[in-house]
Amino acid sequence: MSLLVIGTLAYDSVETPYERRSDALGGSATYFAAAASAFGPLDLVGIVGRDFKPEHLEFFARRGVDTTGLEVAHGATFRWSGRYEADWNTRHTLATHLNVLQDFDPKIPERGRKAEYLFLANGEPRVQHKALDQVERPRFVMADTMNLWIDIAKEPLLHLLRRVDAIVLNEEEARMLTGEKSLLRAAGAVLGLGPRFVILKKGEHGAFLLSKDVHFSIPAYPVENVVDPTGAGDSFAGGFMGYLASQGKHDAATLRRAMLFGTVTASFCVEGFSVEGLSSRSRTDVDLRYDELLSIVTV
Amino acid sequence: MSLLVIGTLAYDSVETPYERRSDALGGSATYFAAAASAFGPLDLVGIVGRDFKPEHLEFFARRGVDTTGLEVAHGATFRWSGRYEADWNTRHTLATHLNVLQDFDPKIPERGRKAEYLFLANGEPRVQHKALDQVERPRFVMADTMNLWIDIAKEPLLHLLRRVDAIVLNEEEARMLTGEKSLLRAAGAVLGLGPRFVILKKGEHGAFLLSKDVHFSIPAYPVENVVDPTGAGDSFAGGFMGYLASQGKHDAATLRRAMLFGTVTASFCVEGFSVEGLSSRSRTDVDLRYDELLSIVTV
Repeated sequence: MSLLVIGTLAYDSVETPYERRSDALGGSATYFAAAASAFGPLDLVGIVGRDFKPEHLEFFARRGVDTTGLEVAHGATFRWSGRYEADWNTRHTLATHLNVLQDFDPKIPERGRKAEYLFLANGEPRVQHKALDQVERPRFVMADTMNLWIDIAKEPLLHLLRRVDAIVLNEEEARMLTGEKSLLRAAGAVLGLGPRFVILKKGEHGAFLLSKDVHFSIPAYPVENVVDPTGAGDSFAGGFMGYLASQGKHDAATLRRAMLFGTVTASFCVEGFSVEGLSSRSRTDVDLRYDELLSIVTV
Repeated sequence: MSLLVIGTLAYDSVETPYERRSDALGGSATYFAAAASAFGPLDLVGIVGRDFKPEHLEFFARRGVDTTGLEVAHGATFRWSGRYEADWNTRHTLATHLNVLQDFDPKIPERGRKAEYLFLANGEPRVQHKALDQVERPRFVMADTMNLWIDIAKEPLLHLLRRVDAIVLNEEEARMLTGEKSLLRAAGAVLGLGPRFVILKKGEHGAFLLSKDVHFSIPAYPVENVVDPTGAGDSFAGGFMGYLASQGKHDAATLRRAMLFGTVTASFCVEGFSVEGLSSRSRTDVDLRYDELLSIVTV
């Protein structure tokens, strides 16, 4: 398969009502790659500092993630810390240290430039544009973003929306971006901004996909024991894009199945801290849970 | 079909962020009957006061709802008033006047006693027991309840759970009843209390059905313009039980389809104040939206 992700790599410090972890491997590109790699090899472009641990490079290698495009810069790796409330839906960001991320100027290696499937993980829209500029003829480009960029970089973000096939947003972002309170109307309004597909993530309440022709809605996989929700959205995107890239197509039926695969990888993600819930998941593990999820949603 | 509902009839005063209505027809049995009647005739047992308007009796007659078992007592009809926040999920009860409901002693007429499908709508568990005692050989009994009864009548409610086939609860009720925070675990714990089936209603986030053998989850129908959420749960139950009764069976496949029909009738309900969203809906209207919902959830 031909899949490229560009995004952040981070060391996260996370507090949940039950546990805490410091400097655990995180970042949007990391979670995406951990999930997508269950479907086949992919390329990762990002930036880390000199403090990035060899064991984490080995983790990517073991998962078939090519890190040729991972720049190791002077300085420290991006750091994020946050705390979750007991309902898991309320997250407080305690600190963000951009470190090397401040000067990220993505350079996509040869193979990545020829990628057919491209995920622009959450990051500065200016950087997402720079990455997109370098990929020659992508067949399907999906982008993610966050409230920060809607606030401080709305123009380049709106421009990006006109250059991608799909955008993945959570409820709050969709409302912020469009001013529409109804999620369905917000999703419709996002389509009017350019992308052919919008995916709205609703966390424990599932996700839906909207295009001119397709409307597909799916509940979340019922995880019994949530450990850490960090990275669930990127893991969803990883399962979604990993499946599309593994199939080499993105027709309506394939997109619907991809929504299930994304739901599955997101459910693995939240069952562990950092990438622990994903790190040893094979395609077989994914397929087993896919079948279970399919039985739960099939009328 | 052979379907009986026992529950409340009320005059509701409702404030939403956009509008308000006073003394509009409401109550658990009312909403249930308004929804279920799209599938065929049914019997209703309840109590109202002398102030109950003839036009509302005519409404039931027009929908094929037999009100032989509706007692008209001295005094005023049960009144409820509440206010919704802009997110629709927060509801403040402003006032409750039980009026004639205080002395409700249900007497089920001849045909109702032979009902095959029975819905014990939200009401005092003692009254639900009395009604159940009078139905001779029901094939499928579903009950609803609310946080108040979990608080002040837990023993008779727990006893009721051992006498019914299915219980329908919202998230808060399931957590209150079981002490489990995870919805799936809470639903599992409810099964341990007696019923073979538990339906968990999650409002705008859909619903799921759990039994020893069946786990089915469905998102809500995407309503673009919510007018008044009052009665959505009872309308869900009405579509669910109406479909089962119209089919005369409740095997796993029928139950899954019933979850969709309940979702459809609940969506009609919230599109209007009182029973306005349901009052003129035919089986054809229901089937059209069912097909649309099916296309939204089919992988």
